[in-house]
Amino acid sequence: MSILVVGSVAFDTIHNHLGTHPKVLGGSATYASLAAAPYAPTQLVGVVGRDFPEDAIELMRRKRIGLDGLEVADGKTFHWEGRYTDDLTSRVSISTELNVFADFEPKVPKEARSVPYVLLGNIHPTLQMQVLDQLDSPKLVIADTMNFWIEGTPNELAEMLKRIDVLVINEDEARQLSGLYNIVKAAEKLRAAGPSTVIIKRGEYGALLFRASELFHAPALPLREVQDPTGAGDTFAGAFLGFVASRDATDEETLRQAVVHGSAVASYCVEGMSVSGLVDIKKQDIETRVDLFRRLIHIPTNPVH
Amino acid sequence: MSILVVGSVAFDTIHNHLGTHPKVLGGSATYASLAAAPYAPTQLVGVVGRDFPEDAIELMRRKRIGLDGLEVADGKTFHWEGRYTDDLTSRVSISTELNVFADFEPKVPKEARSVPYVLLGNIHPTLQMQVLDQLDSPKLVIADTMNFWIEGTPNELAEMLKRIDVLVINEDEARQLSGLYNIVKAAEKLRAAGPSTVIIKRGEYGALLFRASELFHAPALPLREVQDPTGAGDTFAGAFLGFVASRDATDEETLRQAVVHGSAVASYCVEGMSVSGLVDIKKQDIETRVDLFRRLIHIPTNPVH
Repeated sequence: MSILVVGSVAFDTIHNHLGTHPKVLGGSATYASLAAAPYAPTQLVGVVGRDFPEDAIELMRRKRIGLDGLEVADGKTFHWEGRYTDDLTSRVSISTELNVFADFEPKVPKEARSVPYVLLGNIHPTLQMQVLDQLDSPKLVIADTMNFWIEGTPNELAEMLKRIDVLVINEDEARQLSGLYNIVKAAEKLRAAGPSTVIIKRGEYGALLFRASELFHAPALPLREVQDPTGAGDTFAGAFLGFVASRDATDEETLRQAVVHGSAVASYCVEGMSVSGLVDIKKQDIETRVDLFRRLIHIPTNPVH
Repeated sequence: MSILVVGSVAFDTIHNHLGTHPKVLGGSATYASLAAAPYAPTQLVGVVGRDFPEDAIELMRRKRIGLDGLEVADGKTFHWEGRYTDDLTSRVSISTELNVFADFEPKVPKEARSVPYVLLGNIHPTLQMQVLDQLDSPKLVIADTMNFWIEGTPNELAEMLKRIDVLVINEDEARQLSGLYNIVKAAEKLRAAGPSTVIIKRGEYGALLFRASELFHAPALPLREVQDPTGAGDTFAGAFLGFVASRDATDEETLRQAVVHGSAVASYCVEGMSVSGLVDIKKQDIETRVDLFRRLIHIPTNPVH
């Protein structure tokens, strides 16, 4: 079953322990759709400027991402510049040039309105809702958000939460949005605000999946080398939804596997700069890494004495 | 097979979100031996002052902890006072009165010298080595340490590391001791310094077990209520070694289960003030919680299509 991804398509200029990487491909919709595409037909809704390079378009086409919803507007593409600390645990924004993204009004192509699986990337909650207004009745809507919207547009965010099925959110932002430090209580409060499922991302510590009666702890793979954590969360969400769409199921067992797939693809993402870790992975690579996750957490059962 | 636990036996005065708890039972050897005792015969080596109350002795006896190695010296018992932040993620020491612990020279009772499983609690590395000097040839020695010794007695600590099999250490302290931020590389460097197994404790995120070729990620149980994290690490180490001793095995599969048992008993520990969470747990309670851990991390396998 097919997927619609809405979010930013951007250039990122990244300063990290490896140097400066000017104007590499980035954006929440870019990462999420590259992660979802190996699983299911994926369409992207977003906007770029006239400066957006043909080879980036070509890359997305090669990954069979539907680009009918990618608007090319007069002006320049969204450009974010940031610097990571050497241990990659935090980053500061140096500049955010919204450019054509400032006037973005997502338009869902007519033939995509009946899409069953929807990912609302981390953009203004009003834009996220505008997308939902254009859709028939999706089976599952997953959304991301961040501190910027929690602080700046709390009312719109509250409205958006009522209309989604799955919220994917960082641990710190879950605490900020709920006002509760205890992560079990925070997730409970977020679920009461709308989404029946809440996924708390904990970076190198993995992720927690909260549902009505079930709690699932997914590990992250301890990696010897991390190049670039940019887009890891979007990648997680994209592969998560990709797996769900490939199974066309939203039961507990499917969602648990989907979280592990999200984590597995995100682990490839952070091993390369920009989207390079996602470009060449095949379904078999993902399965191999999912098996690594299974081995990583395997608890033997008691031998019979 | 039996266990020897060496470390501090203390009074703790704890200030936390629940109020002030004056002179409750504490100390690394206290927590560790209470956690180990349900698994295997456990003996404690430590020192208390004349003020140490009979009911604390009685509690340890009731848990069948061997106290032949618990010296009662003239003077007062070690007393630590500290304050936790409301979210329990950090604490500051208000005072540390070593008292009789200042002159502690661990003496292993003659009949305990052949004990196969040894836990060196978080004390001066020279004292930890003095204990090893008194032992025949234990099958497995596990040790804990902390920033105080990493900064204050690095040479002694380096000597100690060469003589142990398992190092249990907090994530931050693993980074400090190795000088490496990446946790995979940090564990590798620590293993090269002596212990064939390194366990990195990550608090509410669980623990990582590093061995020659294997890596195991154990979750922590997300808890709705935490009362007191004091002693959680000692409890983890005690139950870990308890499980190993009960199986009399040190293979990979046993150690993985031991880490989960350590985490399970530690989860009981933090749910109560001081040692109260450990006093009444039975083997069956631990098994029930281990089953919760198994369910928490269960990744379903693909259905056959």
